This record gives sequence, structure tokens and C-alpha cells, in this order.
Amino acid sequence: MNPVEQILSHYASESPGVIGNLRTLLNSGTLAGTGKLVILPVDQGFEHGPARSFAPNPDGYDPAYFPSLAVEAGCNAYAAPLGFIESIARDYAGRLPLILKLNNSDSLGGPDDPHSALTGDVQDALRLGCTAIGFTIYPGSEHRNEMYAELSDLIAEARECGLPTVVWSYPRGGELSKDGETALDVVAYAAHIACQLGAHIVKVKPPTAHIEQAEAKKHYDNVPKATLAERIAHVVKASFNGKRIVIFSGGAAKGADAVLEELRQIHAGGGYGTIMGRNSFQRSRADGAALLKSAMQIFGGK
Amino acid sequence: MNPVEQILSHYASESPGVIGNLRTLLNSGTLAGTGKLVILPVDQGFEHGPARSFAPNPDGYDPAYFPSLAVEAGCNAYAAPLGFIESIARDYAGRLPLILKLNNSDSLGGPDDPHSALTGDVQDALRLGCTAIGFTIYPGSEHRNEMYAELSDLIAEARECGLPTVVWSYPRGGELSKDGETALDVVAYAAHIACQLGAHIVKVKPPTAHIEQAEAKKHYDNVPKATLAERIAHVVKASFNGKRIVIFSGGAAKGADAVLEELRQIHAGGGYGTIMGRNSFQRSRADGAALLKSAMQIFGGK
Amino acid sequence: MNPVEQILSHYASESPGVIGNLRTLLNSGTLAGTGKLVILPVDQGFEHGPARSFAPNPDGYDPAYFPSLAVEAGCNAYAAPLGFIESIARDYAGRLPLILKLNNSDSLGGPDDPHSALTGDVQDALRLGCTAIGFTIYPGSEHRNEMYAELSDLIAEARECGLPTVVWSYPRGGELSKDGETALDVVAYAAHIACQLGAHIVKVKPPTAHIEQAEAKKHYDNVPKATLAERIAHVVKASFNGKRIVIFSGGAAKGADAVLEELRQIHAGGGYGTIMGRNSFQRSRADGAALLKSAMQIFGGK
Amino acid sequence: MNPVEQILSHYASESPGVIGNLRTLLNSGTLAGTGKLVILPVDQGFEHGPARSFAPNPDGYDPAYFPSLAVEAGCNAYAAPLGFIESIARDYAGRLPLILKLNNSDSLGGPDDPHSALTGDVQDALRLGCTAIGFTIYPGSEHRNEMYAELSDLIAEARECGLPTVVWSYPRGGELSKDGETALDVVAYAAHIACQLGAHIVKVKPPTAHIEQAEAKKHYDNVPKATLAERIAHVVKASFNGKRIVIFSGGAAKGADAVLEELRQIHAGGGYGTIMGRNSFQRSRADGAALLKSAMQIFGGK
Amino acid sequence: MNPVEQILSHYASESPGVIGNLRTLLNSGTLAGTGKLVILPVDQGFEHGPARSFAPNPDGYDPAYFPSLAVEAGCNAYAAPLGFIESIARDYAGRLPLILKLNNSDSLGGPDDPHSALTGDVQDALRLGCTAIGFTIYPGSEHRNEMYAELSDLIAEARECGLPTVVWSYPRGGELSKDGETALDVVAYAAHIACQLGAHIVKVKPPTAHIEQAEAKKHYDNVPKATLAERIAHVVKASFNGKRIVIFSGGAAKGADAVLEELRQIHAGGGYGTIMGRNSFQRSRADGAALLKSAMQIFGGK
Repeated sequence: MNPVEQILSHYASESPGVIGNLRTLLNSGTLAGTGKLVILPVDQGFEHGPARSFAPNPDGYDPAYFPSLAVEAGCNAYAAPLGFIESIARDYAGRLPLILKLNNSDSLGGPDDPHSALTGDVQDALRLGCTAIGFTIYPGSEHRNEMYAELSDLIAEARECGLPTVVWSYPRGGELSKDGETALDVVAYAAHIACQLGAHIVKVKPPTAHIEQAEAKKHYDNVPKATLAERIAHVVKASFNGKRIVIFSGGAAKGADAVLEELRQIHAGGGYGTIMGRNSFQRSRADGAALLKSAMQIFGGK
Repeated sequence: MNPVEQILSHYASESPGVIGNLRTLLNSGTLAGTGKLVILPVDQGFEHGPARSFAPNPDGYDPAYFPSLAVEAGCNAYAAPLGFIESIARDYAGRLPLILKLNNSDSLGGPDDPHSALTGDVQDALRLGCTAIGFTIYPGSEHRNEMYAELSDLIAEARECGLPTVVWSYPRGGELSKDGETALDVVAYAAHIACQLGAHIVKVKPPTAHIEQAEAKKHYDNVPKATLAERIAHVVKASFNGKRIVIFSGGAAKGADAVLEELRQIHAGGGYGTIMGRNSFQRSRADGAALLKSAMQIFGGK
Repeated sequence: MNPVEQILSHYASESPGVIGNLRTLLNSGTLAGTGKLVILPVDQGFEHGPARSFAPNPDGYDPAYFPSLAVEAGCNAYAAPLGFIESIARDYAGRLPLILKLNNSDSLGGPDDPHSALTGDVQDALRLGCTAIGFTIYPGSEHRNEMYAELSDLIAEARECGLPTVVWSYPRGGELSKDGETALDVVAYAAHIACQLGAHIVKVKPPTAHIEQAEAKKHYDNVPKATLAERIAHVVKASFNGKRIVIFSGGAAKGADAVLEELRQIHAGGGYGTIMGRNSFQRSRADGAALLKSAMQIFGGK
Repeated sequence: MNPVEQILSHYASESPGVIGNLRTLLNSGTLAGTGKLVILPVDQGFEHGPARSFAPNPDGYDPAYFPSLAVEAGCNAYAAPLGFIESIARDYAGRLPLILKLNNSDSLGGPDDPHSALTGDVQDALRLGCTAIGFTIYPGSEHRNEMYAELSDLIAEARECGLPTVVWSYPRGGELSKDGETALDVVAYAAHIACQLGAHIVKVKPPTAHIEQAEAKKHYDNVPKATLAERIAHVVKASFNGKRIVIFSGGAAKGADAVLEELRQIHAGGGYGTIMGRNSFQRSRADGAALLKSAMQIFGGK
Repeated sequence: MNPVEQILSHYASESPGVIGNLRTLLNSGTLAGTGKLVILPVDQGFEHGPARSFAPNPDGYDPAYFPSLAVEAGCNAYAAPLGFIESIARDYAGRLPLILKLNNSDSLGGPDDPHSALTGDVQDALRLGCTAIGFTIYPGSEHRNEMYAELSDLIAEARECGLPTVVWSYPRGGELSKDGETALDVVAYAAHIACQLGAHIVKVKPPTAHIEQAEAKKHYDNVPKATLAERIAHVVKASFNGKRIVIFSGGAAKGADAVLEELRQIHAGGGYGTIMGRNSFQRSRADGAALLKSAMQIFGGK
């Protein structure tokens, strides 16, 4: 069985509509057919503000820049909030898989515990020709139950329309320490929760070797975790033994070498790919496209 | 391509109904066909109380005054809450584009963080022959997520009926300082959020050179911001590189010269126009109409 | 044009059903055809408890007492909560216009800020043969946004059934001082808000000369406010320049002479009438009816 | 008990809303309070065409003519199809009870068996401020079951909104002979069916002494039927022993003396009144009003 | 009062939304403000087939031809079925009032009696930015009751969205003779039925002097009918004494002189305008536009 069909065999309860859109995601771009994914996400304008996001490379002020970059670089998909998708859907629907992020949070102050606003719905995703919806949950936040319920409803609604769901699972808020947000036990836990909620694709951050939860510590004694590849492997295992697609982000912008080394570890650990935002679009177009292509070479096994 | 059709080409994902009503807005009044807008908004009776709003020019106690002034002066549209629109819709629907403000907040005390009340719905807008709906969000408020979700739902509902949405995006509340409400980074951010939420027209205040957010400061080092025109240009850039219509208010009443100088800067910076309330209707009819006409001359490039 | 049709011409956006019921209200009772209204309201049993309300005149324990009094005295309408209306609707629908109060609050303790409970719906009003619905808002209360939204929904629903809405607009709660609740600026503001929300008839308390809001003070320098008649005139002006029907209550029970003097001032100031509860039904039947009839003489210009 | 309340006591299962609107019908116009009704119905434009209906008195081409005539003459109500009611409802709702005829049939040929088209709904009646709905059934028609079901649904829906239903019950079609349409047994039967279907007011034609149904003949041996008054009395008896309001039409235009003599017999037989269309509006205004007033004198017992 | 507002005063029961769209229709194109209408309708492709419709002037195969012609000639509106409107709505909504024909019938054989298919809905009209809906009824057809009920429902639904309804009322089928379809009595009757059903604008064919219905003949003895102008005047009278807008078609293509003479008679008789399809679009563009402009000169009184 080819890698894509092998992966899809793990989603046997899904309707052909959801399967078909997952298949489209996995069979698009340079990595088509490999079972690996490099996705371009751009929600930083909403999350961090336009200047913090786009001043480093002012091309990004224009919503047309991102899908053009994604196509040039050969990404599997482009993910963004409603306004950005609306701005380009007429030209890209059917050419480049689009993922509509249905919630977003800004950085203009409280509430103390993070909670994203609903900024679109499944009907928007259908109207705009999207291939999937995206949603962020903050495991650890005091508001997480509300988010889980919102996500649960949206997954059900999207499924009825044949749309799979990509979940950004970011531990944050509540009693979590800052280090805890990327602790191995917490990231694995967050990935697992997303899978349990019905996510078809899960996106988490690369975990550190820190163990946050006292009760979890002893259980990690025998889990190999010295290298990022080992930690990635643990997160993949926590994602239904690898039966759910789990991809990793690179976080804040950093040097190209650092990015690529991280990606090699993710690949070595069995990660299904990466979702690379600021590291691609905050570089010049040439550099950004080059970095994305390098990522694809890594995940393509070349 | 004429300026109106050039602007409409950026809304390519929209239905003909929404496009048609945007076209009507852009092709009405003295500025018809220029791609620029001067709108008369009157929600101050609700927001600040009747005497604070209308005592300076008692003609304004009568709801019939405003659409009459708007037509005389050649405005593109008149925006107001339900009661004011109901009071005049029979006579003005089909003559003057009407924008129904669907939420409003009074100034009779708390809650501490601002949140507008829903005071009408999309069905009201259809019943009253309106060309668009209007909605206010307060980025920064603790209640902003709720507002974003309300707006998101209303935009979707209005779109199904062919109605575009004008969003008043006023940073306010939460951890924002008073100066921060008009800081360049915050205003640009507020405009960007409105665009991401699907606003067809965004209304913000003219920004100062202040930068509020610590994380944003370094990104503004190279953004020209000495003149208002430069700052306007940045806000337009933050509004999807000018692909969304962004207009500016003048705020509190001031001298005519100050108003006109501000408008010249807004025009020079590429702003799509102005929404001028108190500066027009708190003057005598002759002076208010004259000031609106002067605004049109500026945006008409004369 | 006769006074009633003159008033109705200001509601030109309304359907014939709403107009017809307003016409019925204005053409009932002794004041029929004058454009003036004297309404008997009895919600004190719910609001203050039965003994506080009815012990002064025990006839009032019987719900049949009120419509009988209203008919005898020649009132335009009788307004009460669901139970009282249900108790007498079979006998009075079609004889005496009934106004169903759709929310009420008791005085059994918190919440700190006032918020009425929904105690009926539009379907009840139709079922019971009512001519209008009634609703109370508390501008100033922390819960006012919720009330405004509830009212907005009810007005829309009632309109579809041809029923107009009477709004009791009582500033209360939040940061308002006790004196502020009847301050001229606050009462005018409360009346204006009710009009903006789509009320067809607004009921407020007679204002004092106190100005509550610091920002409003200077705007009242030139507003005549020495006499109650002058203050009433200002509230009428704030009610869309008199284009919405605004009536006044007498508040707590007091001497007949004081009541009548107040009504003369309300009439002199252009108020559309009065809604007189405790001052009528807490007197003996003969005295109560006599006082109501005196009120009608005043508003009838005799 | 006064006559109106006596009549209403027979509708004890009805909600106050329906009772209230019946009370309004019975307490309007010259016959207010007598328990008798003279209604002006104008559906002939739809049923027979405009020239056949209005050429004899061209005033009738104008929809404003009829309610004006009804008010001048002192009718209890005016009944017409949607277009005619819409044309005048803004001016007459609340002044003159309006009855919206919800089905109508034209005379432009087949189908062979009569069946009226639905031409409005209960929501229209509320929107237009009507006091009742009207509906025609054709007992005898092959399509009668469909009509009965339509009527049954409409009565239920109208009742929920507090609106009573007036049923025109015209035996017609199927195996009925032309004479049979006004046969005593058939008219009585038609009135009874309407009552059984829940009609609040039934309108039939004055019956002849002819007995149509073979099975019914022997049962009419002892029923007095020589005079119209006797036959009317039988139809009233068939209408739940007079516990439902049954009124009679005069049919085709005829001489004033013939009309009045017929009305005297209807009154003598205990009929609740008349619904007089062509005999009133196809005369000059003066003559039509005079005839209507004469009808009121008869039913008023003067 | 200007002619447009004078006409709108006859629709006093309507919401501002419906009034606003009627105002837009009456204030568009060359005849704006005159109270007269020249509409370009193109449903012949559906009704008669494309070659019969467009071979005479092959420009008509392209849906873009018609709105372009309508704008060039200065028509008030363009009316067509769903596909044609969809094809051009993005470019014309907000520039040229569009009327979406919601039913259509082809000429591919039976049923014996004419009945149009529903081919769109009110939501389509909103989505496409239309100013009105259109609907055809065939009074005389055995299926007319079904059509009347469909139309009644659509008018109610469109009204709630602020859209007026244009009704094509074509007597056809059943027992009507071919001559009877344009007989004076039948055309007047068909116009009256459309008005009674709630049509805001009625379109009929110019009537001949033939009288079809035996029962109607005597009523036409005194109706002037020798000239087309006289017959038009009768149809206008049958349309609620001219209180509903009634326009006339020219029917099959004919010589320009014949067309213009007919239009002069329609104008002389008080017709509100014309809806000219084949006579305009089956000519060359220059000739078609010229003929439309001549029609406007006639109705503009020049």
C-alpha cells in the first residue's frame, strides 16, 4: 500500500468525503504521495498584529503573497483566518488546499487565561472551497472545556460536510509553567487530547525534555527523551500510536540552520511534517521559498 | 478599470448581492465613482446621550434632520441605530444608502470593560431597505472574543442576504492605556482584525505616532510615522495592503480647519474616506453641510 | 389631520398591524382621538409584593378590580403581568386595550444590579387578545446590554404579529446615584435609548432639575429646566423631537393635589399622557376613579 | 347579560384573543352591542372580474371606496382579498374591523369542480391588522375534502394568533343540482359542516324550500319551511342550535325592496345578520349607504 | 409630490424595504423620476428556445448582451431567468436593477394546460443582488390555483426580505379562446387578479376590443374601447384604479412604426410603461437601442 493509503486506513470510520479531502491534502504539492506534509500557516496578523508579523518582510501585508508563496514552494496547503482566505479563495480554491482557521486570539491584553474567539464557521469553509477547517485549543487554560466543546461541535458539523479538521493543540494558561507548555509529558498529552476529540491532523510544538507533571515523572524514567527525535517519537506514539497525523511547528523565527536541524529531528522521530509560518514568510520571498523547499527535501527523504 | 470596479475586484469571493450593495455605496452621492466615501454616522444619541449630542445644534433632536443633511451634502450613506433608521426609512430607502448599526453602547456606567448591546438584526436591515449593516468591536476589551463571534455570525447572516458589513473597530478596555487606543500599532492591529473577521469596510480613528505594545516597538523603527499621512498609509497597508476599504473618523468636534487638515492627511495617506458625525451635525446646518462638502472636495481630489 | 393620525404619521415604517393597534390604543377611552393617553398599570404585586401594593385598598387583591376601574374611569389601556392579564382577558379583550408586561422583577433580594425576569412572550399576548406588549429596561444597570438585546428581539417578534411595544425605561443600578435615577439628563437619555431600540411608546419618570453626568453638565446650561413643564419638554425633545409617544408616571403614592399639579406640568410640557398605578388603585375606588378622570380632563385640555 | 356577551358565552373553549376579536366585530359600527352584524364583503373583482363587479358603480374600481362606504354606513366589518386589504390597511386598521379572505376563485373557466386558490395566510392577517380571516368552502365539490383540510389548518393557525375565522360555506359542484345549491337541506348541512370545522362565523345563502337530498326528504316533512323566516330558523338551528353566528348573503343584485324584504325574513328567522356586497357597492354611494343603513335598522330591531 | 412618491403613496402598507426597491426601479435609467418604466425582459430562450429567440440577432446568444443593451438604452431594469441573471449579476448588481424571474415554462410539449416551473427562489434574488422578483401566472389555466398559491407564498417571502414582485399575468389555457387571451374583459380581469394577489407591478398584454366572457358583455356596453388608449385606460382602472403599476408588452416582433404607435396609445391611456423584449433584442443593437430610446421618449412625454 502506498504511504497515503496506509495513513488513510487509520481513519476507517470516516466518511468518503472526509477521507477524500484528507487524500487531497496528502496528494498535493511537492510531497504528494509521500504521506508527509509541509503546510504554510499565516494567522500571525491576527494573533500578534500586522507589523510584528509582516514588517520583517512587507510582502506579507498583501494577502495574495501567501498562497503564491505556498504554490511556488510546493506546500501541501495554506492555512489562515477568514479574511485572508476570503481575499484569495476565488483564485486558489481547487488549486491549493485551503484550511480555514475557525478561531483566533489577538494579543491586545487579557483575559488572563487564553481563549480564542470564533471567527468563522463550517459554512464559510464550504463557501470558500476549503479542504479542511482548523481550530486551536489551549489545554491547561481555565476555558479549555469550553474550547473542547466548541471543537467537538465543529468537528461534527464539518464531518457532515466532508471536511476534516486540523487542530492546533497548544498547552497554555492555568497552572502550567512557561516551561511546562513545551514539556514532553504535556505536549504528548495535548496531542492525545486532540486525537481523542476527533482531530484528523494534530499540530503541536516540538517538546523539550522537561517533565511538568509531578504524577507523570516516574513514568518518563524509561522513555527515551535525550534527543528531539526521541521526544518526537513519543508524541507520535501518544497520537494513537501514529495512527493520527501529527505535525510540528517551529515556533519563533530563527536561523535557517536551526530550523533545518529541528526538521531533521522531527523527520527522524516519525513526525508527519511541519507547519512553518514565521520562519518562511518573515524571510524574503527567495529565502522563504528556499527554506520551505528544504523542509520538503527532508520530509521527502532526499 | 474605474476606481469602483478596481476596489470591488478585491472582494472576488463575495456574491453579487454583497458586491451590488458595495457598488451602490460607492456610486452614491457626490463622490460616486471615485472609490472614496464620506459617510454621515449618528449614533451619539445612544452612545453619549441626546443633550451631549444634539444640544450644540438642536436640529439634531429630530431624526429627519440627518438624512436630509446627508442628501444635501452629497454623502455616500447615512449610518444610525434602529430607531433613527426606522424613523426615516420609508422616505429614504432607495434614495440614500442606509447602514443599520446593529450594536450600540450607552455611557451610563459600567461594565468596566466595554461591550455593546445587540440592538437590531439582519432582518431589520432588509425590512428597512438598508444597504449594509454596521457593527462595533472593541479590540482590547475583555469581552472582545464575544464581540468577534457576534460579528462573525452577523457577517455570515448578512452575506446570505446580500448585505455587506461596516465594522467600527475601536481599541478600548483591558490593558490598553488611553493613549494606546489611538496608538499606531494598535489602530493598525484593530483594522487588521476587522479585515480578518470579514469586514467589507473598516472604520478606525486616525492614529498617533505612539506605539503601545512593547513587542511591536522594534517593528516600527523603520515604519515612517512622523506625519498623519504616513500613519494612515500604514493602517491602509495593515488592511490587507489596501484591499479592504478603510475609512477614518475625526473623533470629537473641533475647528473646521483642523478637521480639513486631518482629512487632507487621510487622503494623502490613501485612506478611502471619512465618517464624520459630530463635526458635521453639531454645527449649524449650513456649516455642517459646507464641511461635508469640503471633505468631498478633498477626497474627490479637487 | 386629526391628532391621532398626525402621531401615527411618525411611524411610517411600521406595518398596518402595528399602526392599527397603536390607533386602537389612541382611540380608546375618554381620551380617544386626542392623541393623549392615561394608562392604568398594575405590576406592583410582582414588583413590591401584594401587601405593600394592595393593603391600602384591599379591592386590589382581586385582579378583576383593575380592568373594571380602568373602564369606569375611561383609561386608554390596562397594563399588567401575565397572571393578572390571564385572569381577566376573557372578559376584557376587545373591550379594553390590554398591555402584557413581558418582564418583571421582584424585590426579594439580589442580584445587586437590577435585571427583570422574562415572564411571558409574544404568543401569550396574541393568545390573550392584547393590544401591545410591555417591557422594562434599566439603563445604568450592569445587565442593561442583556435587557436591550432581549427587548430588541421581542420588538421584532411582536412587530411581525402586528403588536406595538411599550417600554418602561427606568435608569437604575450601576454607578447611578439615587438622585441620578430621575436626573434630567439621565431620564432624557433613558427615553432616547428606548426610542432607538424601537419602542413605540416610552414611559419614564418625571425628571428633576438635577444633572447627573459630569460630561453632560455644560450641555444643559442653555436647556430651560426650572419648571417640570420645561423638563418634560426636554424629555419629549429627546424622544425623537416628539415623534415617539412618551408618557410619564407619577411614582410613589402622594396627595391628589400633588398628583394633579404634576400632571398639569406634564401636559404643559407636551407629554403624551400618564401611566398612573399606585396613585389610582391604592385609593378607594371612588377616589381612584376620580383622580384618573381628573387626569383625563387635564390631558383632554379641559 | 347583554346580547354580545350572551353570544360569546357559546365560544367558551376559545382563547381570550379569539373572543376579543369576535367582541370587537360585534361591538363595531351601528349594530355594536346588538349581537347582530352587517358586513361589507368585496371579493367580486376576483371572483367575477372587475367590469362585472364595478362597472355598475365605477367608484368601486378604487379600493379606497369600500372601507369608506363601510365606515359611512356603519358596517361591523369589511371583508376582501389580500390586494384590496393591503391597499387600505394602513388607513383603516384599528378603525374598521378587517377580514382577510384567504382563498378566492376566479371565473375564467375550469376546473370542472370548484376549488379556490389560497391567496394569503394568517401572517398576512396579522401584518395587516385584521380582526379575522375568511375562507370559502364548497361542500359538494369533488375537492371539498382538500378545502376542509386547508380550512382546518388555517383555523388552528389563526386561533394561535387570536384570530377568529369567518367561513363562506357555498354548496357547489359534484352531484349537486343548480337548485340544490340553495336547497334548505343543503344550506343547513353546509352551515353545520362549517360549524363542525370550527368556524366562528358562518355565511350561507338564504335557502329555498327545495329539498335536494333524497335521504333527507322525509326528515323535512315536519320542518316548517314555507316562509324564508322559517327556513332561516332551520339553518340557525342547524348551526349548533344558534350557538354559532350564522349570517346570510343576498346574492345577486336586485331591487332595494326585495333586498329589504329578504333581510326582514332573515331577521325574523333569527339570523345574526347579513353580508351585503353587490347590493350595496353596485348602487350609487348614496343608495348603497342607504341600503346598508336600512339593513342595520332591520337587524337593530328598529 | 413628484410622480414617483405619488405612486409609492399607494403602497402604504409596505415595509421601507419594498418601498425602497420600488423607488430604485422608478428612479433608474432615462425615465428616472417620471413614474414610468421601460423594462428589458429576456426569457424567450427558456420559453421559446434559443434559436427562435436569438437567431434574428445572434448577439443575444451571449447573456452579457442584454444588460449592456439595457444600460445603453437607459432601461429601468432587466428581467430574466436564473441562468441569465447569474451570468451577469457580478457586473451589474447595483448598477442596473435586476428582476429575477422565478418561474418559466418551455415549449417542448405538454402539459395540455400551461403551468410554469419554479426555477429559482427569493434567496437567489438576494444572493444575486436583485431589486425585485418576477413571476408568471396563467389565469384561465386549469393549474391557475396552484400558481396563485405559489405566487402568494413567494410575495410573502420576498416582502420579508424587502423585495417587491412583478407579475406577468397572461390569460391562457382552459376554456379561453385564442382571441380571449387578449380580450379586453380578460386582460382587465387578469390584471385585477394579479393586484389582488399582492403584485406590486403587473405586466399584461395590450387588449383588443374583443369581449370573451358572455356574462361580462353587457358591462362593457358603456366602457369606451374603440381605441387602444381607451382599452389601456380600462385595464389601468381595473388595476385598483391605477393604484398599482401596470405595464404592457408589445408581444411578437413587429415593425418599429407599429411598436411606437402602440406605445403612444399605451401612454395616452395612462399605462405606466412597457416591457419590451423581442422587439428590442431581435433587432440589431443599434436598432434595438434606438427603439427602446424612442419608447422612453414617448413615456417621458417628449
